[in-house]
Amino acid sequence: MWNLPPSDSVLHFLSLVALTAQGVTAALAAGRRSMDWLGVCFLGCITALGGGTLRDLLLGHYPLAWVANPVYLAFPGAAALLTILFARFVHRLRLAFVVLDAIGLVVFTMTGCDVAWQMDASLPIVIVSGMVTGCAGGVLRDVLCNDVPLLFRSELYASVSVVTGLFYATAFGLQINAELWTILTFILGISFRLLAVRYKWEMPKFVFTGDEEREP
Amino acid sequence: MWNLPPSDSVLHFLSLVALTAQGVTAALAAGRRSMDWLGVCFLGCITALGGGTLRDLLLGHYPLAWVANPVYLAFPGAAALLTILFARFVHRLRLAFVVLDAIGLVVFTMTGCDVAWQMDASLPIVIVSGMVTGCAGGVLRDVLCNDVPLLFRSELYASVSVVTGLFYATAFGLQINAELWTILTFILGISFRLLAVRYKWEMPKFVFTGDEEREP
Amino acid sequence: MWNLPPSDSVLHFLSLVALTAQGVTAALAAGRRSMDWLGVCFLGCITALGGGTLRDLLLGHYPLAWVANPVYLAFPGAAALLTILFARFVHRLRLAFVVLDAIGLVVFTMTGCDVAWQMDASLPIVIVSGMVTGCAGGVLRDVLCNDVPLLFRSELYASVSVVTGLFYATAFGLQINAELWTILTFILGISFRLLAVRYKWEMPKFVFTGDEEREP
Repeated sequence: MWNLPPSDSVLHFLSLVALTAQGVTAALAAGRRSMDWLGVCFLGCITALGGGTLRDLLLGHYPLAWVANPVYLAFPGAAALLTILFARFVHRLRLAFVVLDAIGLVVFTMTGCDVAWQMDASLPIVIVSGMVTGCAGGVLRDVLCNDVPLLFRSELYASVSVVTGLFYATAFGLQINAELWTILTFILGISFRLLAVRYKWEMPKFVFTGDEEREP
Repeated sequence: MWNLPPSDSVLHFLSLVALTAQGVTAALAAGRRSMDWLGVCFLGCITALGGGTLRDLLLGHYPLAWVANPVYLAFPGAAALLTILFARFVHRLRLAFVVLDAIGLVVFTMTGCDVAWQMDASLPIVIVSGMVTGCAGGVLRDVLCNDVPLLFRSELYASVSVVTGLFYATAFGLQINAELWTILTFILGISFRLLAVRYKWEMPKFVFTGDEEREP
Repeated sequence: MWNLPPSDSVLHFLSLVALTAQGVTAALAAGRRSMDWLGVCFLGCITALGGGTLRDLLLGHYPLAWVANPVYLAFPGAAALLTILFARFVHRLRLAFVVLDAIGLVVFTMTGCDVAWQMDASLPIVIVSGMVTGCAGGVLRDVLCNDVPLLFRSELYASVSVVTGLFYATAFGLQINAELWTILTFILGISFRLLAVRYKWEMPKFVFTGDEEREP
């Protein structure tokens, strides 16, 4: 999911946390669809690593992180399996999950921006790369579970990714301390997301019920 | 979405029109699912650029056009946002949308053939490349909106892409004037598609209700 | 779908059989959704070649086999079209289809392992490559038909792919006769899959009905 200078150990540590967190959220979605244990494990890996994988395909950034280091498959896979065991206890901890999910969104956005920046992409592509990394895993999870992706409908989700990416990207221009900036961006993004969930901030919706331009 | 010699300004101009048109059709689909504004904007970009992106991934044709020139993201994105404002007026113009959608199909098919040809692909791959570029964006839109893709069910759609691609590809062999051929192909493809819609031409359907070979 | 030393003619022959078999199963799925003939043909190609294509994208293994040899498109495409003609007779042959489907699963798993091995991938990636090649085509088919993929829900399917891959991969370490090992793995995999179908072996399912961590 990332390709960081070893010095930025903060972002690396947060990434492992985020991989684990996304595995847990995927397992809960899989459980609602009564998938078997191997399916739960797969969906965990696809959700946690899908965003970074899609980004790497789009940018031509080979080899993929999990191909080079298969250990990254172990984090979300193990997290998904453990969720099966602990789900009956865990689902009471709703706040913990919202926080873990937000960690995934914010951290993957930062790693996505980072990878694009290291490939000398332009600013819009750095932002798009962050969004794809942060959001695409959840879209894949929802498509595979046969839902309309939450991304397109829920509270501010992609918006959090865009704001986080813009804030983080300014650091590249300013050449300031990387780890400090990582922590600042992390706090900003998490706070924004949690406030959006808490107060149900939403973007206006576009509801269109006119004639189909092609008959369904 | 394309990679043309600068001389073929006709196809380049048509491509910008097609990007805009696909953004509009995507926004209408998003509106039927009550997506929020950012979701509408994303779906516009995915629909308009998804076909060319998939083609470039399949052919290993890096960097992607919109990564190299992020301005291509602006056309469908802006078109989708403007559609939100004007939808209540626009949906009366059903004919205009059918035409715009046909422009997207035909133009992207031509650009897809062009890219494959420039990579020295064989004729079948040139045709497939045209089809993928012309049709895949709409398939992605339908999957993300949780529909069975129209491509597989509606009036002649992929067929228009195949015929357009075959007609256009003969030009490469004949070495004739590129811009003239572009215009001829464009008129042929648009006419074919519009006639198919007007007279409800359809391919025969395959309806199978036998035993499942694997229990669902 | 594969990239084999010409000597391993057994696996090459089996691959052509598997491509054909997957085209047939895809056509039956398409018929249940009343797709038109071209849609049936596409879905056959996507199902049969989708797994290998996704694997090649993930591993950066260009050019794709069907781009280099478009004749591979002809097998599943022709098989899908012939299925339209013969479906009323064929669906009585339920056992034949289960066998053909199992051939696709096992053979594509072996070719996937082979490709990854030739790229010097680590053992976990060899196994994942086999699984992606064996299973992803069916997932694509189900997503395009708007179903929750069977992979995540049915009898041992991905499990068969994992076991087949592990067994086959040990051959690479042992440096034994390739064609003999191919045949042994083939028999093992087919038997495992058919026994799983016959006796309805299933992995335990994870059913979770707790609170959503994000409101739907």
